[in-house]
Parts: sequence; structure tokens; C-alpha cells
Amino acid sequence: MKNTQVILARRPVGVPAASHFEIRETAVADLTDGQLLIRVSHWSVDPAMRGWANDVPNYSPPVALGDPMRSFAVGEVIASRHPDYAEGEVVEGLLGWQTHVITDGSDIGRKVTETDLPRSYALGIMGLNGTTAYFGLLESCAAKAGDTVVVSTAAGAVGSAVGQVAKVIGCRTVGIAGGPEKTRACLETFGYDAAIDYKAEDVAGAISAACPDGVDCYFDNTCGPISDAVMTRLAQGARITICGTAAITEWDPLPVGPRVHRQLLVARARMQGFLIFDYKDRLHEAHAALAGWLRDGKITVREHILDGPEAAPGAIGMLYRGENTGKLIVKVG
Amino acid sequence: MKNTQVILARRPVGVPAASHFEIRETAVADLTDGQLLIRVSHWSVDPAMRGWANDVPNYSPPVALGDPMRSFAVGEVIASRHPDYAEGEVVEGLLGWQTHVITDGSDIGRKVTETDLPRSYALGIMGLNGTTAYFGLLESCAAKAGDTVVVSTAAGAVGSAVGQVAKVIGCRTVGIAGGPEKTRACLETFGYDAAIDYKAEDVAGAISAACPDGVDCYFDNTCGPISDAVMTRLAQGARITICGTAAITEWDPLPVGPRVHRQLLVARARMQGFLIFDYKDRLHEAHAALAGWLRDGKITVREHILDGPEAAPGAIGMLYRGENTGKLIVKVG
Repeated sequence: MKNTQVILARRPVGVPAASHFEIRETAVADLTDGQLLIRVSHWSVDPAMRGWANDVPNYSPPVALGDPMRSFAVGEVIASRHPDYAEGEVVEGLLGWQTHVITDGSDIGRKVTETDLPRSYALGIMGLNGTTAYFGLLESCAAKAGDTVVVSTAAGAVGSAVGQVAKVIGCRTVGIAGGPEKTRACLETFGYDAAIDYKAEDVAGAISAACPDGVDCYFDNTCGPISDAVMTRLAQGARITICGTAAITEWDPLPVGPRVHRQLLVARARMQGFLIFDYKDRLHEAHAALAGWLRDGKITVREHILDGPEAAPGAIGMLYRGENTGKLIVKVG
Repeated sequence: MKNTQVILARRPVGVPAASHFEIRETAVADLTDGQLLIRVSHWSVDPAMRGWANDVPNYSPPVALGDPMRSFAVGEVIASRHPDYAEGEVVEGLLGWQTHVITDGSDIGRKVTETDLPRSYALGIMGLNGTTAYFGLLESCAAKAGDTVVVSTAAGAVGSAVGQVAKVIGCRTVGIAGGPEKTRACLETFGYDAAIDYKAEDVAGAISAACPDGVDCYFDNTCGPISDAVMTRLAQGARITICGTAAITEWDPLPVGPRVHRQLLVARARMQGFLIFDYKDRLHEAHAALAGWLRDGKITVREHILDGPEAAPGAIGMLYRGENTGKLIVKVG
């Protein structure tokens, strides 16, 4: 049995390109006691992979050259000598860009039990993106019915989930996205009450028009000029969740921007950094809620599925150029 | 009976100087039903008075020209035709810079019942400064035993209370102040574990030395370069309370500074604006706790008391030039 891997062959500086990866085939070894074999069906492509491929301090050490690219992936257990896993079970975890994984289970995040839903959802709405949206919005942003919720990268994998969860709980939702196609998706696919095209509109003015009582919650994936504009329109007691920093490519030295202190003071607002890893013991809450909303048709998912391992090397670049039309996934089985 | 008032005679731009005020004497009118007469003994001098005197949008409308300067003050009821107030009671409130006040009670913040303590404390440690320290530290900063708490303007009326309350509840305290005299007061009078002279030291380096495990709580009264330095030393889960913005003199247009977003994200920290007015229904909690600590000698207060109404006009300038050596008060009776 062959294992097809996409390995990090050269160290990128910045966004990894196809030229930094190579495809390699290796033999799948025999299982020993305590191990299981997973046949992987889908690889995830996430913004965090840029950081993992670069040799810079981050939440995790960089991927070693010659190793399969670190990524979330989902697959089926096809053989097991591990007491906790049985053949036929579906598992999700940091399995990397490879078609077959032998593991002692330490790479596995969870068993995917919502097998009535598309399996790829385990990497997006039922994975990092959806759980980030769920806890980021409900806990960090403390959104509640009646709040006006503004979301940046509103049509993205996280943003579109934030907007829809906010709508489910009774918020008014305003999405900020780039270009007519994404703003149309905000309105028509993800049910935002208003959508702002930051490439074509004055964001502060558009926020004023869309949020006459100010912004109660701002779920931010950008941290650049879009955020600076939203910060001028805070309601009293506003909550700002910093989830991603897509608009800033370089943090050393620290870039400068308008000081937020007085805006926070006058609005008695709070700005808070959010990382889903802090909620690892509560993920089941998000999984249960999200699966229910998906089954009830209250949340719509857009995926952009690439076909086969050879599509993976260029995928991170696609993501950073905004060329994907939904959660970016590579189907490999 | 004569009422001596310090009125705002000319509109300042920026910090009010002595030349913006005039002293005026008026006759005290007779009481009508529902009114009481207060003989004021102490006027407060607070940073907020700069904003009140200027014609700019703020939490409250500007003081009208010709009116007594708005300020907190404390005094004794010397006559009452009001059912809720009796002769001999001590009251504190926004009574303004005048020696006698006839009021229907709407200007009164509270009755001062801790008459065993110096009456002037009602304007500082038992007033805005102490209650701000109490709720800002315990609620907004959510400080708890074992936390490392950093305070800017650490020897000031608010800062010195923050540092001492933090110490009472079992925190390690680090004060930042300007000059050898204030840093010595931090260590010798207010019991900080460490003190940093921002005029003489590299603040980021000094914070690293004083806070080897990072900063859990930062109580900020400055919002300028000192804060920028503290923000580089956050512990995981840090809480930053924005209480004042003493280092920034002009907010329109917004000044620029290092972006805080990634620091908040990496540390999963939160930065929050604090205003004591949001706790007006819970002030009694702070009053009870602070009075207890004062009686037990766990909190030390430094006051800088000026004598007589003629000292008031120059007092706001003194405060902004940092010439006071404790909570600045004008004694008028």
C-alpha cells in the first residue's frame, strides 16, 4: 500500500508557493500494537499553514523540511490495533498532507460521529472554522439577541459561520467582504442583513448607515484599515474579538495604526484576542449546536474542493490571494 | 451669609490656567421647601476638570462661562428643609467650586458616614479615585491573588489605590512613575514590590526584570509609550484596563501607535475601557471595603491640600504639571 505525501521541500518566507513543496510516495508500514491506520479522504487548507511553514515563532514549531505539510485532515480507520479505535470509524486531526497515516492516536482531534453530514465538513464548519465562529462569537464577543454584529472577511470560512450563528441567535448581521461576488454571497448565501464591499465603499460611512445604533460586536479577522474604520462606530459596551490578522503581513517591527485606547474608554468597550485552542475541552458543545443547525438548514456551507494531491502545493497561495470561493479543501480519496 | 465661588470666566483650550477663572462672592439665598444648604469644606481637583472646562464633547457638557467650576466637593448640611437630609450630616457630590450650596439633593452623590476618617478622604480614596481603583482592578482587570499587577501613574491618587488594593488581595505589584521621588513613594509609602522610573529607565526592559512571568494585569492611566512598552510583556490571559489617557493630549485626529491586535491575540489578552459611572449602583461595596482597609492601616493615603479658594484657579495646572505630591484638594472651610 502506498502513502502519497506532499512534503515541505524548501523553506518559504511569507506565503508558501507550489515550488516549496514536493510530492513523494512511501510504503505504508505494518501496524504494531497500539497503532491504527487511517485512509485520509480530505486535506484542509488553512491560513495558519503559512505560519507553520515559515521558520518563525508561532503557536507551534515550524514544519521540518522533508516532513509532510502539517494540516488538518479527515479519514477513515481501515485497520486498528488500538483499543480506542475500530475499523470504519471516521477521525479528524492534524494528520498532515498524506493519504495514509499510521498513528498511536495522538494526532487525532476527535471521532467524527455526524456521518450524515458531508465528511469534508469535519475540516470546516464542524472543525476549526465553525468552532472558532461559535466560541469566538458567543463567548469572546458575548453576542446576544438584538446585538448588531459586524464581521470582517464575512464570506470566508470563519466569517460566514460567524454571520450565520449570529443570525440564528437573533442578531442583526453586517458583513464586510471584498468585491461584488463576495458581498453578494454575504447577502444571498449567508443571510447577512447588510454587506459592505471594502474595495468599493467607505467602510466607516457604510457602517454608520448599516448600524445606526453602533456596533455591539465586531468579529475581526483583519486588524487593518477595515478594523480602524469599524472602531470609530462602537456602541456602548461593544465587544471586539481579534480572531485573525489577515490585513497585516508583517508584525516585526510592530506596524503602527490609530490608537484604540480612547475608543475603548469612551465606549467602555473590550477588545480581546481569541484562539480556539483555549476551548479544546468544550468543543463538543459547538459540534452539537452546529450539527443541529446544519441539519435544520439554518447554516449554509460553501466549499471549494480541489481534486487530488497535486492540487495541494498551490492551495495556500490560492487562499492568500482570495481565489477560493468557499472553505478550501483538497480531496484525496 | 456669603458664598465664595470660583467661576469659569474664560474658555480654555487644553489645560485650564489660573487666568481662566475668577473669584466671586454672592449672597446665600433663603431655603425653600425641598432644599438644603451645605457649607462646603473641601473641593476636589481632578484630571476630568480639564475636559469639563473645554468646549469639546465629553461624558458631560462643558461648564458654562460664569458658572462655578464643576468639581466634586464635600461639606456639612447646615440647614435643611429637605426630608432626606438633616443638619449635621456630611455629604459629597458634584457641588462645584463654591463654599455654600443650596440644592434639592440632585447634586449629592452620597452621605459620608465614615466620619471617623478625615473628611477630605470622601473626595479621593473614598470617592472617585478609590472606587475607580477598586472596581477597575477587581472587576475590569479581574485581578486575583498571585497575579502580577502593573500600574501606570502608580503614585497618583488612583494608581496608589490600585497598587495597595492589589497588594491587599495578594498580588505582586509593580508601579511605573516619573522621577525618583515618586518611585520612592511607590516603594516606601504604597508598598509596591517594584517601581520603575519611566523618565530614567527602559520601561520594557524594567518590566521584564520586575515581571519574569509576564504581566497579568495592567491598570493603565497613560495610553502612550509606557503602555506600548508594557504591552510587549503580557502574560497569557492578561487583562488591560484603560482608565485614563494622561500621555495623550490630543485625540482628534487619532494619534498613531503600535498596533495592539497581535499582542492581544497571541496572549489571548483583553483590553477594556473603564469608567466608574458604570458602577454607580455598586459603589457601597467599594466604600465598605476601602473604609475597612483604611481603618486597618492597610491603605495609606497621601494628600496635597491647598488652602483657600484663591488657590483653586491654578490647581488644575499644577495637577497636569505633576507638581502635586498626593490627591490634590482645596480646603475652604
